[in-house]
Amino acid sequence: MTMTVKTLTGSYPVLIQRRALARAGELFRLDRRVLVVTDDGVPASYARAVASACRDALVVTLPRGEGTKNLDSFRALLSTMAEKGFTRTDCVTAVGGGVVGDLAGFVASAYMRGVDFYNVPTTLLAQVDSSIGGKVAVDLMGYKNLVGAFYPPRAVLIDPDTLDTLSDRQFACGLAEAIKTALIRDAALFDRIEKGDPRRDAEEIIAASLAVKKAVVEADEKEGGVRKILNFGHTIAHAIESETDFGLLHGECVALGMIPFCGESVRPRLIGVLKKAGLPTTLSWEGDALVEAMRRDKKKQGDAITVVRVDTIGDCRLVEMPFDQLERIVRGVKL
Amino acid sequence: MTMTVKTLTGSYPVLIQRRALARAGELFRLDRRVLVVTDDGVPASYARAVASACRDALVVTLPRGEGTKNLDSFRALLSTMAEKGFTRTDCVTAVGGGVVGDLAGFVASAYMRGVDFYNVPTTLLAQVDSSIGGKVAVDLMGYKNLVGAFYPPRAVLIDPDTLDTLSDRQFACGLAEAIKTALIRDAALFDRIEKGDPRRDAEEIIAASLAVKKAVVEADEKEGGVRKILNFGHTIAHAIESETDFGLLHGECVALGMIPFCGESVRPRLIGVLKKAGLPTTLSWEGDALVEAMRRDKKKQGDAITVVRVDTIGDCRLVEMPFDQLERIVRGVKL
Repeated sequence: MTMTVKTLTGSYPVLIQRRALARAGELFRLDRRVLVVTDDGVPASYARAVASACRDALVVTLPRGEGTKNLDSFRALLSTMAEKGFTRTDCVTAVGGGVVGDLAGFVASAYMRGVDFYNVPTTLLAQVDSSIGGKVAVDLMGYKNLVGAFYPPRAVLIDPDTLDTLSDRQFACGLAEAIKTALIRDAALFDRIEKGDPRRDAEEIIAASLAVKKAVVEADEKEGGVRKILNFGHTIAHAIESETDFGLLHGECVALGMIPFCGESVRPRLIGVLKKAGLPTTLSWEGDALVEAMRRDKKKQGDAITVVRVDTIGDCRLVEMPFDQLERIVRGVKL
Repeated sequence: MTMTVKTLTGSYPVLIQRRALARAGELFRLDRRVLVVTDDGVPASYARAVASACRDALVVTLPRGEGTKNLDSFRALLSTMAEKGFTRTDCVTAVGGGVVGDLAGFVASAYMRGVDFYNVPTTLLAQVDSSIGGKVAVDLMGYKNLVGAFYPPRAVLIDPDTLDTLSDRQFACGLAEAIKTALIRDAALFDRIEKGDPRRDAEEIIAASLAVKKAVVEADEKEGGVRKILNFGHTIAHAIESETDFGLLHGECVALGMIPFCGESVRPRLIGVLKKAGLPTTLSWEGDALVEAMRRDKKKQGDAITVVRVDTIGDCRLVEMPFDQLERIVRGVKL
């Protein structure tokens, strides 16, 4: 299926289809110089499939992992484009997970104040979450996504077949974001994940998750209001994530981060789904360390934080909460 | 006077008035954390005047000059904001010339994907040119403005009294851009500069120049079409500028760059005005070096370049030109 996402200044198509990787040349305008950015955790054949559709591709393979998403990589990619004589009418294509998409998108946004950006997310997390919405960024000084832009892609290609090479742990991390999306807006999607086989249903899960995200980001492109509901579970998730001692991945932290902000009737079903997905539901943590990490969280606005609560599956509300109340919740919940 | 510039997503006011520096607190929302960026070529009293109107100001004074406008400064300012706990609702204010405005604006555009940006241009060049239009950037690998964004300010404050401390050479550089603007769109402004005393008439010259620029950038915010007319004189200017052996400033290069693209009837009057302003009108140059520098120019699009021609004062046209024709013009004109 193809979805069209509207932005403040235009729109872009998102193709979700098995075997779509072979169709990159139809969806993207690749008859020009193309910087193809990928990482060494992504099967090289995916970037090669895109490159083979380009008139003049330059493939850059970065080291995998969040550590790559920084200003040094940003500078290195921009320098490469300058050295190779990329012009304003050339473009950048990301092939990989969220790290590659966020970094390559920020590079595209900044090179000559913006060249066309195409995204081929190849992890479930990137497919259900970061592939649309136009948020691009790199990390700085340990703060995630501290430096970036709102820069919509020209088009997004999602091939669920790329998930065949994704580890179960990585697949589960993507599913955590789909579960989040289901909880805040789509009870039927929650049922599907709860009862079905998510690997088999990947195409439908991606489409349903993106339908929710599309509606939300179209209503609030710059994250001034309703878009905050997408942060469900993320206030604590970011804090857990920044305490790297836990060695948890983003989706695993989101899984844990949702639990304290669900109503009593929702929590058992959520925990059941998380367990089925192979996601963590308990954590031995240091309350103080988490509270401290939350204080540093970039979404902090003065002394109050907006948190998202889910008391009924498929529905949510924003709650402005003084920091000390949030602190009590974090210390009080036994994960 | 106050001018309102419309953008794709909103609008911002530009106040042009002598002694306006003392009114920063009225025009800008400064009851928050404010990063005030300036450089050591700007009288410190200007940044102090702005800082004194802020609830919580942090003044950063950078070394003057184009060398400051790079990714290292970008990172350093972002890191400072992170260290000091700047949030999404805090802001950045530039007090200085184009280097400070371009750098601080790019920092504001990127910190947490964008915080409010205010601009107080204190050189004539910045006042008549870069203060509106929303183009922010830093240089990379010797390429001017290679990395940046389109990011409109929230408000601009122009106090022509700040020009009292500007050297005659710097004043002339700003006047070169005003002359450019007059040539492409405003014959009356050309007459005023030709016959009057530009220092005395600074407020009117700034207002007239910005009125033209406002009309052009409103029609073409992202530089896809008519905005290119603002590049009049700049194709060669950038090339001359990058040959640093000449030791010329940007405005001086623009002055020289306009001459080959004027019609025969315009050229003598232009040269007269440039001489009166103290701007260069001749240059011993190496044609080959300039042609080579032009090839590297970032505005290059494939093999053809769009140049701007003025055959009647106040009027101009865009001409698509193969690179070798441009080369003949550059080699042929005796400056």
